[in-house]
Amino acid sequence: MNEFLSKKAGSIKPYTAGAQPSETDIIKLNTNENPYPPSPKTLEAYRSFDAAELKLYPRPDGGLLRQAIAKADGVSESHVFCGNGSDEVLAMAFAAFFDGNITFPDVTYSFYPVWADLFGISYNLLPLNEDFTIPADKLRGKGVVFANPNAPTSIALELDDVEKVIKQNSGHVVIVDEAYITFGAQSAASLIPKYENLLIVRTLSKSHALAGMRIGYALGQPHLIEGLERIKDSFNSYPLDSVAQRVGAAAMLDTEYYREAAKKIIATRERISKQLKELGYTVLPSSTNFLFVSKPGASGAALKAYLDGCGIYVRRWNAPRIADFLRISVGTDEQMDILVQKLKEYA
Amino acid sequence: MNEFLSKKAGSIKPYTAGAQPSETDIIKLNTNENPYPPSPKTLEAYRSFDAAELKLYPRPDGGLLRQAIAKADGVSESHVFCGNGSDEVLAMAFAAFFDGNITFPDVTYSFYPVWADLFGISYNLLPLNEDFTIPADKLRGKGVVFANPNAPTSIALELDDVEKVIKQNSGHVVIVDEAYITFGAQSAASLIPKYENLLIVRTLSKSHALAGMRIGYALGQPHLIEGLERIKDSFNSYPLDSVAQRVGAAAMLDTEYYREAAKKIIATRERISKQLKELGYTVLPSSTNFLFVSKPGASGAALKAYLDGCGIYVRRWNAPRIADFLRISVGTDEQMDILVQKLKEYA
Repeated sequence: MNEFLSKKAGSIKPYTAGAQPSETDIIKLNTNENPYPPSPKTLEAYRSFDAAELKLYPRPDGGLLRQAIAKADGVSESHVFCGNGSDEVLAMAFAAFFDGNITFPDVTYSFYPVWADLFGISYNLLPLNEDFTIPADKLRGKGVVFANPNAPTSIALELDDVEKVIKQNSGHVVIVDEAYITFGAQSAASLIPKYENLLIVRTLSKSHALAGMRIGYALGQPHLIEGLERIKDSFNSYPLDSVAQRVGAAAMLDTEYYREAAKKIIATRERISKQLKELGYTVLPSSTNFLFVSKPGASGAALKAYLDGCGIYVRRWNAPRIADFLRISVGTDEQMDILVQKLKEYA
Repeated sequence: MNEFLSKKAGSIKPYTAGAQPSETDIIKLNTNENPYPPSPKTLEAYRSFDAAELKLYPRPDGGLLRQAIAKADGVSESHVFCGNGSDEVLAMAFAAFFDGNITFPDVTYSFYPVWADLFGISYNLLPLNEDFTIPADKLRGKGVVFANPNAPTSIALELDDVEKVIKQNSGHVVIVDEAYITFGAQSAASLIPKYENLLIVRTLSKSHALAGMRIGYALGQPHLIEGLERIKDSFNSYPLDSVAQRVGAAAMLDTEYYREAAKKIIATRERISKQLKELGYTVLPSSTNFLFVSKPGASGAALKAYLDGCGIYVRRWNAPRIADFLRISVGTDEQMDILVQKLKEYA
């Protein structure tokens, strides 16, 4: 460690994102990107943007994007906060609402402990049940964060259970990370008017095929949105560039196209899930655009190395409980057929 | 303050950015934007980008942009860190290198104390000299940050003085914020091989007319770049979207166009500065794309209100020592002629 680092920078353990290889002849199923492109209307919004406008600063609050999110999600603009991907929104939410003793599941998005450490927030890990579901009754803390559906397990919590978690933590903010919500689970958005401690965080990366554009947002009552704005304006006043605001707005309003894309992904997921089970794989019940998969008796490390050799990128964590699982993004039907074929040959 | 805020969120005093009004019939001289558009090659990079690629995550390290910065500034890629505007880069540098007892001038970029508070870093304010120059000899701390040229004073420090500050703070990181460097001051970039504690931060917002694209970067020896990467990967792995990477790279490589644009701005600045002095205004010697101006005997608040009424937006801080000054961005010749005319009428 070098002598110039702050105590914080020297002690944190940064998050490791999935690889973004520059080879193009691979099958990339490692970062849960949408296999289908953004909608024609979204692409048209890109094309019609006048790049000469870039000489001016963007709207600091997200401008048209914020309006479009409010419209699409049926809330007022005062209930919406926009950020540079849901990672930034989550980071700011940690800083805005948590002082310590927060709780999240032991198997979940591996960025949560990193943000907690970055902002000096102590945390407790709640073990998932044996079947990798979240024991909702026990999810309590001075602040709670969980993903629904959870990642990388792919399993969704019922809305009743989500509401239970919000209720039993009244007085502390409950962040529901809905990064994968459009692929089958029920959103908690309908609960926002009822609970002053509920903050929902979403991303356009997966559902709207805009991973490369970096757009995330939060929904919650205005006092929570104001808390996020306080942190944003103490960190970076303009996190979303003018192109992202324009393109994201068009995507949010083109609901039909993205609903159809999600349907296709779900159909592929169910088909492949069935085939993998027939091959003897364990496949957790997915409400996401990925599958969490293991082969009884086989090593996850060996299986990943085999797929790497086949030019198929998937993700694996060398972590307790899940070291023998692979997280496989749902790609196109063609990509997934090749995957199944290769796994057949692995036997 | 609402009950859900963390102690930090409740106690910080966020930065206030210059207004981004939606009216188009105003003369906007309040946020130091470049009055000229991005170069034709930059606009072409925007147009030729295939927006269907947005379904994939961007390169987490800045990709082509990082390469272009390295090439344009004559360093290796290991000396470059890219972020979502120089504000984000500065915020991350505070977190990466400072533990407390840092020093910066009393009159400088008003975001410095905000970042210090956000990350719990104590700081000392060094009073500027009577003439608003930085007393370089006295700029010492367990970490130092200053803008060169300084903002909002517009005054540059000689390179010898910058080097003195770096030398007298060996063992602690010295951040030189070169947001306005292309408008007349001498960059400290040539000192990077010599000093392991020097970090330079720059933005494409002003010099490259890309305020709307949110691109900033840092230059320093690789151990400092690694420190910034540790913080980035603990906050948001992909701060720069794919469009910003492509457009920013084209801008960095089109040096001739932007040098000419800077020359035009400097010529306008000198012409207007002279005219304002002839009208009896105090105009600090500017090496930036703005003028810091006061009218002896006149109230800054009244003068700003008058210009607001004329549809001319400028910036003023209700802060010690500078409450009677206005910061006026250098716009086009036409815009500045109207400004001078209106100030003549103010008498």
